[in-house]
Amino acid sequence: MQSQGKLYVVGIGPGCRELLTLKAKKVLETADYVIGHSRYLDFVRDIAGGELIESGMGREVERVKMAIDLAQNGNKVCLVSGGDPSIYGLAPLVAEITYRSGIDVDWEIVPGVSALNAASPLFGSAVAGDHAVISLSDLLTPWEIIEKRLRKALEGDFVIAIYNPSSRKRKPNLERAVEIIREYRGNCYVGVARNVCREGEVIRVVRLDEISEMADMHSLIIVPSSETIVDGDVMITPRGYSKKYGLEVR
Amino acid sequence: MQSQGKLYVVGIGPGCRELLTLKAKKVLETADYVIGHSRYLDFVRDIAGGELIESGMGREVERVKMAIDLAQNGNKVCLVSGGDPSIYGLAPLVAEITYRSGIDVDWEIVPGVSALNAASPLFGSAVAGDHAVISLSDLLTPWEIIEKRLRKALEGDFVIAIYNPSSRKRKPNLERAVEIIREYRGNCYVGVARNVCREGEVIRVVRLDEISEMADMHSLIIVPSSETIVDGDVMITPRGYSKKYGLEVR
Repeated sequence: MQSQGKLYVVGIGPGCRELLTLKAKKVLETADYVIGHSRYLDFVRDIAGGELIESGMGREVERVKMAIDLAQNGNKVCLVSGGDPSIYGLAPLVAEITYRSGIDVDWEIVPGVSALNAASPLFGSAVAGDHAVISLSDLLTPWEIIEKRLRKALEGDFVIAIYNPSSRKRKPNLERAVEIIREYRGNCYVGVARNVCREGEVIRVVRLDEISEMADMHSLIIVPSSETIVDGDVMITPRGYSKKYGLEVR
Repeated sequence: MQSQGKLYVVGIGPGCRELLTLKAKKVLETADYVIGHSRYLDFVRDIAGGELIESGMGREVERVKMAIDLAQNGNKVCLVSGGDPSIYGLAPLVAEITYRSGIDVDWEIVPGVSALNAASPLFGSAVAGDHAVISLSDLLTPWEIIEKRLRKALEGDFVIAIYNPSSRKRKPNLERAVEIIREYRGNCYVGVARNVCREGEVIRVVRLDEISEMADMHSLIIVPSSETIVDGDVMITPRGYSKKYGLEVR
């Protein structure tokens, strides 16, 4: 009799081993198949059980369908997603495909530490309190919607975490975003976190007009709110305690 | 000679053991002191090394100062924060106190899985793509700012994750928020996730006018975007793949 298969959509966090959850580690170790882009497989290659299947960027639908197929055939399958699978990861795609097609497969998302949660502490505490999360990739969202959201987030004085700020093909998006931010905040300071918890990690606070050179597709940009303390490479968004409790001001 | 102390601000995730990171587990097990609200200490009591110090809600500054003091005296101290410490947790307070006071102490934030990342999959994939995160607690943020952010997030058609929606003392805030959401979306469906990954977990999609009865301080409310698929207790915010790739529509 064939055993019951299951598909796990596994968030592996920003990349370093120690930010993996206990659950992610366990399902990866006991999987029959671990499927993902080679960039993410590299982070878990040494602990992944079973067979590894590498799949190219931009072939997400194919990757998900293969994973579903293997799970339906009785295998324990891990589909690897960087960070947290809900946040610009594979979770919504698996949810949508299984929902729309009515495919009968047991599946589960294993949440992970997203890039903003890993990057924020490296500046001190940059993303704290109310915040907005926006991707500049217009592969799947029209630019008009991205621009509107960026404007509303700026008007709302949110701390803004910008995912996928730039790639070789999408340089103009970041340039347009910079112009929009400049309208509201001038040539403000922004945080750039590149390769968080990975080789080549860079954590820097720079002026807005310097980010085009610094940000790539493996970067997260943090736009501070009006309350954020910026000092050198430190960014701290307080939660109002100093106002409330009268902390000594340096 | 006294050994070097260190303060860890440890995100323990939503509460279940398996969503702890490897790093959080390790620092908790090897700590000299583990400090936190009893609600959070209960989740890690069995693995916490050293002495446990329980501290009441609303005494955050005192708790942080005690933790710093112990670390300065050569101890390895874990200050426990629910979810991720940056997101409405203790990270910004530790960052601000050490920054403003110039206190010389070695400290580090250990990120964790925040409530939205844990709750989103339980609906299917509710919080995906661009989203805004707002707390309704006006203990530390004036209500006018909260209201403005809520309006901007609604105008921007973000998925909205609402933290701290209600408590015994703050019922009116949720009622005001409901009225604002209704202005933009009518009596729309919203997701309520209570006690995620803990005893008494409730995952429900209800009409806006039903949430006052359901939401408490241990709940997260998810307001969908115009693109979110809502069907029974399922909420899936697609990433545009179906538009791009022509997935079969059920």
